[in-house]
Amino acid sequence: MDILHRVGIKASSDEVYAALATIDGVAGWLTSAEGDSKVGGRIKLRFLKADGHEIGRCEAKVLELRPAARVLWHVFEGPADWIGTTIAFELKQVGDYCIVLFRHTDWKQAREHMHHASTKWAIFLMSLKALIETGQGSPTPRDVQVGDWS
Amino acid sequence: MDILHRVGIKASSDEVYAALATIDGVAGWLTSAEGDSKVGGRIKLRFLKADGHEIGRCEAKVLELRPAARVLWHVFEGPADWIGTTIAFELKQVGDYCIVLFRHTDWKQAREHMHHASTKWAIFLMSLKALIETGQGSPTPRDVQVGDWS
Repeated sequence: MDILHRVGIKASSDEVYAALATIDGVAGWLTSAEGDSKVGGRIKLRFLKADGHEIGRCEAKVLELRPAARVLWHVFEGPADWIGTTIAFELKQVGDYCIVLFRHTDWKQAREHMHHASTKWAIFLMSLKALIETGQGSPTPRDVQVGDWS
Repeated sequence: MDILHRVGIKASSDEVYAALATIDGVAGWLTSAEGDSKVGGRIKLRFLKADGHEIGRCEAKVLELRPAARVLWHVFEGPADWIGTTIAFELKQVGDYCIVLFRHTDWKQAREHMHHASTKWAIFLMSLKALIETGQGSPTPRDVQVGDWS
């Protein structure tokens, strides 16, 4: 069971790569991040509500970094559904656009939580697009709410 | 290969159902629609650009309608990837929210087009949410663009 998305960002793949391959970049569109974003390093992500309340966290190991081409994370801590999953960002340049092919793979079950994660990833990828194209992303807690969960 | 999403809409399941089970409802959040929305009927969807140019179309047969609970379409015409797929909207009331569990199932291959469709479905489901909560959806050609394709 996989979550798949595709967005096109009017920018170079180098610019998009920087927002995926660095802690500061990730914090600009996804959520509060800390750790070491080099290959083999561990990134800690904390998902927050507007009042600062933490609604979730996960830790991922950086498996691969190919400049302007690919970022790969392996989730080893977090919600039970997320542990053991892999998050891949593939980049390619098509004219003025950097195309991001996103895959969050190896979910064991298609529970309701996975449906929610799929919708939220679309929202966060649109936040990545906005960060690069306008300079302003919407990481948590400013993320667009898709329903009762977040 | 399935596309899954979950959104929560601050409304009754009856209101959300009406936007899924009628031609006028679908045209208010998804795209230009015509046909017969009763069980066994055929719905024709045309996806448009802002200049009126058609960028895609598909035809679906309505397989099931369960008021306030479930709408099921089977795609029998359209892009090759879409033919033979099933689109399901499951509704349930959770407090103030109508939860929509969306599943576009039975894709044969996870091509780039499927990644794009997954992201666009999230955008259209947010348009459905906006239509119900604010009275204003963003069907094509006013839909949020996620990249170079649409």
